[in-house]
Amino acid sequence: MAAESSPAGTADQHPFDLATAVRGGPERFTAEVDPGWTVAGRPNGGYLLALVTRAALEAVGQPHPLAVSAHFLAPAEPGAAELEARRLRAGGRLSTARVTLVQQGQARLEALVTAGRIDPDAAPGWRRAGGPAGLPPVEACVPARPELPGGMRANLLDHIDLRIDPATAGWAAGRPGGRLEVRGWVRFSDGRPPDPLALLQVVDALPPSSFDLGLPSWAPTVELTVYLRGLPAPGWLACVVTGQLWQGGWFDEDAEVWDAAGNLVAQSRQFAGARTPADDARPRP
Amino acid sequence: MAAESSPAGTADQHPFDLATAVRGGPERFTAEVDPGWTVAGRPNGGYLLALVTRAALEAVGQPHPLAVSAHFLAPAEPGAAELEARRLRAGGRLSTARVTLVQQGQARLEALVTAGRIDPDAAPGWRRAGGPAGLPPVEACVPARPELPGGMRANLLDHIDLRIDPATAGWAAGRPGGRLEVRGWVRFSDGRPPDPLALLQVVDALPPSSFDLGLPSWAPTVELTVYLRGLPAPGWLACVVTGQLWQGGWFDEDAEVWDAAGNLVAQSRQFAGARTPADDARPRP
Repeated sequence: MAAESSPAGTADQHPFDLATAVRGGPERFTAEVDPGWTVAGRPNGGYLLALVTRAALEAVGQPHPLAVSAHFLAPAEPGAAELEARRLRAGGRLSTARVTLVQQGQARLEALVTAGRIDPDAAPGWRRAGGPAGLPPVEACVPARPELPGGMRANLLDHIDLRIDPATAGWAAGRPGGRLEVRGWVRFSDGRPPDPLALLQVVDALPPSSFDLGLPSWAPTVELTVYLRGLPAPGWLACVVTGQLWQGGWFDEDAEVWDAAGNLVAQSRQFAGARTPADDARPRP
Repeated sequence: MAAESSPAGTADQHPFDLATAVRGGPERFTAEVDPGWTVAGRPNGGYLLALVTRAALEAVGQPHPLAVSAHFLAPAEPGAAELEARRLRAGGRLSTARVTLVQQGQARLEALVTAGRIDPDAAPGWRRAGGPAGLPPVEACVPARPELPGGMRANLLDHIDLRIDPATAGWAAGRPGGRLEVRGWVRFSDGRPPDPLALLQVVDALPPSSFDLGLPSWAPTVELTVYLRGLPAPGWLACVVTGQLWQGGWFDEDAEVWDAAGNLVAQSRQFAGARTPADDARPRP
């Protein structure tokens, strides 16, 4: 593939950088939603978050996202997209932009992005935990396969090397753990080093924790917020996903991402839907 | 005070309902930011969230917020405000609106609100915890006073009855616990029963957990996201606030709100600033 200039200043043209490239700006960008970053044909939410955040960073001229909040309005599709960006705050240490991802005239996703500069030398002033809780070493974890139950496919896993803690992988064999909990190690398959944009992808790269409750249907994300806490060291990322409550067809899911140096580099929370087969068969009020 | 019609359909004219009233619509509302819901002269973030969410609910015609994400762009002030609302998704079980709070031509806060109907009879399909962790009974907690260290005043506490767990109130006597942790009981002083709008206020009603680290300066919120998980029973609300990491001048803060029946009714997370006096004296790069 020929080298091409990237408006976002990404020197390396790894698949992730190509798949999240945006062109144009400063208020209207175009992008191609890449079919390689989908699950069951739908673009992954974390991938879309990285895409819209690249437009936001360009719109405000800041290097790093700090807090990204997205509401998913309608399923996105592989193919052409427009990104409408609006700078809401400029100057000082922080800038904020709103970005709307539009396909075929319909808003699919809207995000608010507050951005700034993450100090590469920042060290914890205080932290609750010193590392990911209860995650066995990479070698003891189970490689995730792109083939999903029900004949679906996670193309995303062609690009992401994911190793799942066997204690939270029972759902794949019909023995869910019953706890809204999935843990694993994540890295790009091609060796691209992690950065804050990659962390936006990583927080949503594990299977939905609702699988661990034995809810096999897909779990559409309604809202996803990510805080970027540090620049990740090269290497594997540990991702610990837990939820508090599944009620009325909705569940919450937190992800903590720890880098190879043992630092917390991202926190996310999402609000998503998970219904039982009985729910889906019942007529909706 | 004369009864007045409320466009949001609130029958009771409690101070909270009056202070969060919005007029006009469907795309442009006016409101008065009330000086009674401030801390150190600045409108409380949770109060502002309730205000903009009322506009969002009107804009989309739904009864309850489900997920609310706000980015704080500039400090708001008591006085007149305009709320610009835009419906992003309509119909079906969920609706989404964007609301921008504008004062004197400047955007102070932008929020995305996904709304729907919370089933009053929903029961947990699964939950991690059966109630708030480690909170002593109301009678064993310490009433919070509106007078703050440094001569500041929390007018908010004229309206909110807050009782803080003594184990997390040491900062008030110069003995911070050192753990990004504050717990307490909350209710409206006038007996107004809690509802989802009230929960938006409650998640931000406790003192910043950075006080527990001995950081006495005010903690400006950058981002605040709230999920509404159930309709709260009447009575006291238990609020448990914890953070994971203070680094580079930023910290995260989670709040869980449990109702008097022991159900998790709201979850929030915010990204906020907390600097040491030494940070503030140092010239910024």
